[in-house]
Amino acid sequence: MSHTLTTIAFDADDTLWHNEQYFQLTQHHFKMLLADYCEPDHLAERLLAAEKRNLSHFGYGVKGFTLSMIETAFEVSDGKVPSSVIKQIMDAGRDMLAAPVDLLPGVADTLETLAGKYKLAVITKGDLFDQERKVAQSGLGDFFDVVEIVSEKETSTYTRIFRAIGDGPEHSMMVGNSLKSDVIPALNAGAWGVYVPHELTWELEHAEEPSEQERYKKFESLGDVLSLI
Amino acid sequence: MSHTLTTIAFDADDTLWHNEQYFQLTQHHFKMLLADYCEPDHLAERLLAAEKRNLSHFGYGVKGFTLSMIETAFEVSDGKVPSSVIKQIMDAGRDMLAAPVDLLPGVADTLETLAGKYKLAVITKGDLFDQERKVAQSGLGDFFDVVEIVSEKETSTYTRIFRAIGDGPEHSMMVGNSLKSDVIPALNAGAWGVYVPHELTWELEHAEEPSEQERYKKFESLGDVLSLI
Repeated sequence: MSHTLTTIAFDADDTLWHNEQYFQLTQHHFKMLLADYCEPDHLAERLLAAEKRNLSHFGYGVKGFTLSMIETAFEVSDGKVPSSVIKQIMDAGRDMLAAPVDLLPGVADTLETLAGKYKLAVITKGDLFDQERKVAQSGLGDFFDVVEIVSEKETSTYTRIFRAIGDGPEHSMMVGNSLKSDVIPALNAGAWGVYVPHELTWELEHAEEPSEQERYKKFESLGDVLSLI
Repeated sequence: MSHTLTTIAFDADDTLWHNEQYFQLTQHHFKMLLADYCEPDHLAERLLAAEKRNLSHFGYGVKGFTLSMIETAFEVSDGKVPSSVIKQIMDAGRDMLAAPVDLLPGVADTLETLAGKYKLAVITKGDLFDQERKVAQSGLGDFFDVVEIVSEKETSTYTRIFRAIGDGPEHSMMVGNSLKSDVIPALNAGAWGVYVPHELTWELEHAEEPSEQERYKKFESLGDVLSLI
């Protein structure tokens, strides 16, 4: 490594702990609730369209997702969805906000090995309140020097944060399960980008894998990061 | 002033721009929508109870408020609220997220006078995404060195932020319309606390005025801060 690595940042959802599985379970429930009004595949399409459209109003996170489900329920039923179904959608959203934080394999050990040797950070987008809750419940909080919850992950986000918390992007590494939000913008900022795919990834996070390059790595599990350092 | 003042931080909602008025307008609309089910004063009470109860699930902000209104509509109607009313509540919430950012008098001039002479910051709680939108739309963004959006404003919040962005609380001042969230915890952290009341303040933000002390000031308008420096 031509520059010394001093800072390692991790995405949170589906990098440190499971997350997308709760969205998918809730969507499954949502499809059953709306079965009288809409064929499941079509419902999924309409919900994704609503989520996409609403990102610029709601941002990321469970509360916005809940509101998008309610909106979609109105849409696909031409306003005929009974309020009892809306209530169940609300309850499903609330359950997501109370879902346990289930760490991915090897995460705690890896962080324990790295802590003290590197400056460790979480850089995650989403709902401020819910992400803070998950960091707290994860039991991992003490490993991290910094937790940054941002509204969008762009190249400039990584440049700014790695300058503020560390020695700049050239000395920093970003580890995450989203090529689009974690790996590519971090590489573009001049940092290392480490891709640890998760079997479930939200459709809006898909992107082309970057070309082979010194600062890009793909690993099967988070623990493999230790092989780099 | 025994310590030099180097950093001045401002609350955002109802300190820099109007905010509570949109909540109150929406609540008025909500009362009319639910008029068949609930007497207005009782509805207000139930909504406040729901907001209070949901703070630990939703945090602050419009999306959580919208979900609390929907929940209250179910409660007061024993589940009989028609889905068309829920749809109108949703729309009211969405309108709030698109509401214009209407600056309070003297704000822009005051910030212009202070900029460059002090490190200026926004410290606000609420929804990350919506607060960032308001900072951007306010046109005030360039005056601020730092914008910190936090989930809760406690003494430790001010200690941490004033250490990170400035020269510590002793050299910092917090200006805001909430005694509970802006002034008292900042004073407790050792900073100056400047109270600029707004005629509308959310019931959950009320607190006793602090006793007279060197570091506490109360002003009628934000521009009066200039008299201090």
